[in-house]
Amino acid sequence: MTNKTMDDAPVKSTRRGFLARGGTSAVAAAAVLGGVRPAGAEPAPAAGSSPAAAAVDNLPPHAAEWTRSLGEPTAKAYGMPSRFEKTAVRSMYPGLKEPMSAYSTTPLQELDGIITPNGLHYERHHAGVPQIDPAQHRLMIHGLTEKDMLFTMEEIRQFPSESKIYFLECSGNPSFLPPYGKTAGEVVGLISCAQWTGVPLRTLLKHVGLKKTAKWVVAEGADGAAMTRSIPIEKCLDDVLVAYSQNGERLRPEQGYPVRLFVPGFEGNMSIKWLRRLHVTDKPGHTREETAKYTDLMADGRSRQFSFLMECKSIITAPSGTHKLTRKGTHEMRGIAWSGRGKIAHVDVSVDGGRNWKEAKLDGPVLSKALASFRAPFEWHGEELMLMSRAVDESGYVQPMLSQLMDARGKVSFYHNNAVQPWKVSTTGEVTNGRA
Amino acid sequence: MTNKTMDDAPVKSTRRGFLARGGTSAVAAAAVLGGVRPAGAEPAPAAGSSPAAAAVDNLPPHAAEWTRSLGEPTAKAYGMPSRFEKTAVRSMYPGLKEPMSAYSTTPLQELDGIITPNGLHYERHHAGVPQIDPAQHRLMIHGLTEKDMLFTMEEIRQFPSESKIYFLECSGNPSFLPPYGKTAGEVVGLISCAQWTGVPLRTLLKHVGLKKTAKWVVAEGADGAAMTRSIPIEKCLDDVLVAYSQNGERLRPEQGYPVRLFVPGFEGNMSIKWLRRLHVTDKPGHTREETAKYTDLMADGRSRQFSFLMECKSIITAPSGTHKLTRKGTHEMRGIAWSGRGKIAHVDVSVDGGRNWKEAKLDGPVLSKALASFRAPFEWHGEELMLMSRAVDESGYVQPMLSQLMDARGKVSFYHNNAVQPWKVSTTGEVTNGRA
Repeated sequence: MTNKTMDDAPVKSTRRGFLARGGTSAVAAAAVLGGVRPAGAEPAPAAGSSPAAAAVDNLPPHAAEWTRSLGEPTAKAYGMPSRFEKTAVRSMYPGLKEPMSAYSTTPLQELDGIITPNGLHYERHHAGVPQIDPAQHRLMIHGLTEKDMLFTMEEIRQFPSESKIYFLECSGNPSFLPPYGKTAGEVVGLISCAQWTGVPLRTLLKHVGLKKTAKWVVAEGADGAAMTRSIPIEKCLDDVLVAYSQNGERLRPEQGYPVRLFVPGFEGNMSIKWLRRLHVTDKPGHTREETAKYTDLMADGRSRQFSFLMECKSIITAPSGTHKLTRKGTHEMRGIAWSGRGKIAHVDVSVDGGRNWKEAKLDGPVLSKALASFRAPFEWHGEELMLMSRAVDESGYVQPMLSQLMDARGKVSFYHNNAVQPWKVSTTGEVTNGRA
Repeated sequence: MTNKTMDDAPVKSTRRGFLARGGTSAVAAAAVLGGVRPAGAEPAPAAGSSPAAAAVDNLPPHAAEWTRSLGEPTAKAYGMPSRFEKTAVRSMYPGLKEPMSAYSTTPLQELDGIITPNGLHYERHHAGVPQIDPAQHRLMIHGLTEKDMLFTMEEIRQFPSESKIYFLECSGNPSFLPPYGKTAGEVVGLISCAQWTGVPLRTLLKHVGLKKTAKWVVAEGADGAAMTRSIPIEKCLDDVLVAYSQNGERLRPEQGYPVRLFVPGFEGNMSIKWLRRLHVTDKPGHTREETAKYTDLMADGRSRQFSFLMECKSIITAPSGTHKLTRKGTHEMRGIAWSGRGKIAHVDVSVDGGRNWKEAKLDGPVLSKALASFRAPFEWHGEELMLMSRAVDESGYVQPMLSQLMDARGKVSFYHNNAVQPWKVSTTGEVTNGRA
């Protein structure tokens, strides 16, 4: 059972302080440092205040290189990450056969906080990324409406707008089946979070007028796959956006430029990109993507259709697979949690594979249908650990273990795996996927 | 006086509905559209439901181009904006003589919401942008400490961390003096907002131990200018971060990669980039940047020093300079507001140059020392308008008019201009700087 406390004491041990023990890099640095104490070194009697000039002289010679020259010029029109950040990139999935009906993942193990930079938002395409001229693009709304209408982008942007921070997640994040990924990004990197700006769909539907028989909206993309999904009218009149901006700027091409549907909390493929048509109907479209695909095969051989909601989930991103603990003592566990039902209520963490749990600290803002950051101190002294996080949302839904999901759905299920993810810490500090 | 109501009726008129009248683009589009009604056209009797196939046939031929072919491949390792977004870029200031001690502005007139994408965060450099290898970089903390210490980046990231959404603003945003900019970005584009992740400075100061005489921390950058500012110890023990991430990913080089100080709500130049040294002292450093520069010349010829706080401010970003209203009727006014003192309490807007005010709607989240989005409907029927926004923060501070600031400080002041910004709408719909 859960053993919750609200303090920030490390999991399973007493606090010993961060960086209280010597680390390799600090020891190496000490050789060239003279009087200034490396952070990782064992605490020693106070050295007293040392004059600033003397301390600067103690910096390694290479540190002075960029202090003695001009840097690069101001104002790249559009900036990029440091050339030293080679590993913070999106990854294709390992079994890739062609790059059109494919996906790439967000490198969660490299990131902090709840905002995914636009350049690293996960991708999932069914016919590649169309390059659409916004001046040529139109959105049609028709069907069970009082009037059928066609909108230019300029017109869409004149309607009253909203900006909301929401996660977006692929329904196949991750699949139930091996092979399991090595990094957090490979395991569940089909999740990203951004502030989305657009017109509430209810505003557009009110503008065109709905007939009383209107029960569904069938949304269609302008890509070569003409991705098409059906959305219940209640959701369309609630929080769905016709979105044109992402983290302030216009949508990226791979996120549906110039306009996409955004269906908060529902599986990502319903947030139709490159949106060109909203067909108001009295029944769902039973389109290709909601019959042959994006249904859940159950243990008894039947399929579950219209499993829209992305249930509560979490993952520890640091330390996670391919990371390494380089010293013994207190460390910070960091991760993200989210739920399609609303806000995260709390996150529990374990270092012993789920036998004991302790509540992590949520680092606000905690917003509805958005990522939430959690953090918790834990101790490692060279023993084997199995790190886990388990999120609970405001509806009371508890993130399940994989065995619980498989009991309910059998072993051939593919989508909607929101199971607890274990990370194993070896006696030498290597972190690997606890599932593998 | 302020005339506040909480409803969302348009300023100065009754609601007539968005897009109720014909616009140029819609009329042009109508020629090729057959049965589907362009959004901008005059409302007409309901056309009833039209079959989806017929409606698709009515789309302009060019709309089908990208629906009949594969797009570009998935997974650019790091994505970029659409090739059609040519104007959403940072701008150098017009009088630029050299690109090293220079700045570039965020294109506020192109953006939505509160998050600035990292590629468009404003820049201000005193000796260009150093390209620092994080493996070689060190942060020294010394002076009135129990022990002087040197930290590697790996060590800094092992301390307990926080992620906070904060604005960053240059103290000279904008100057009091003409020439005034044309666009919102040219006027006040030295403001951006991101989620910053790092170690609370208080955690590091506690780790090294402070002597009782410690009253200031003098922070120094590793750029060629060795930018140096003094920060009161009370602020350092409050909310200052030693930050290494920005909107999830590692800092951009132009934002201080691999580590910067982040001093929430204080003038931007105090958030020392490429942070290499924190000198704990009993008095301020009276460094070059806090004596010859970043002081405020007052009307009586004396200078105001240590004017840290960025006071409450707002700006309408849409419509703003160089935008154009293309139809008569109801429009949405959008903007951002912020205060170094904490949260925005409310924002009032005016269409008649400040004679009458009406409360705008704040579009959450409204966070302390972060941008807040506001929106308000307004009417335009071909008359001349003067649009203004005026923010009030939770301390009760009210954003002043420029004349009020000049009465207090004289006409030679340069920094800390947080005056209300007017935008003029001409009888033909052109929007220009109301100050010019």
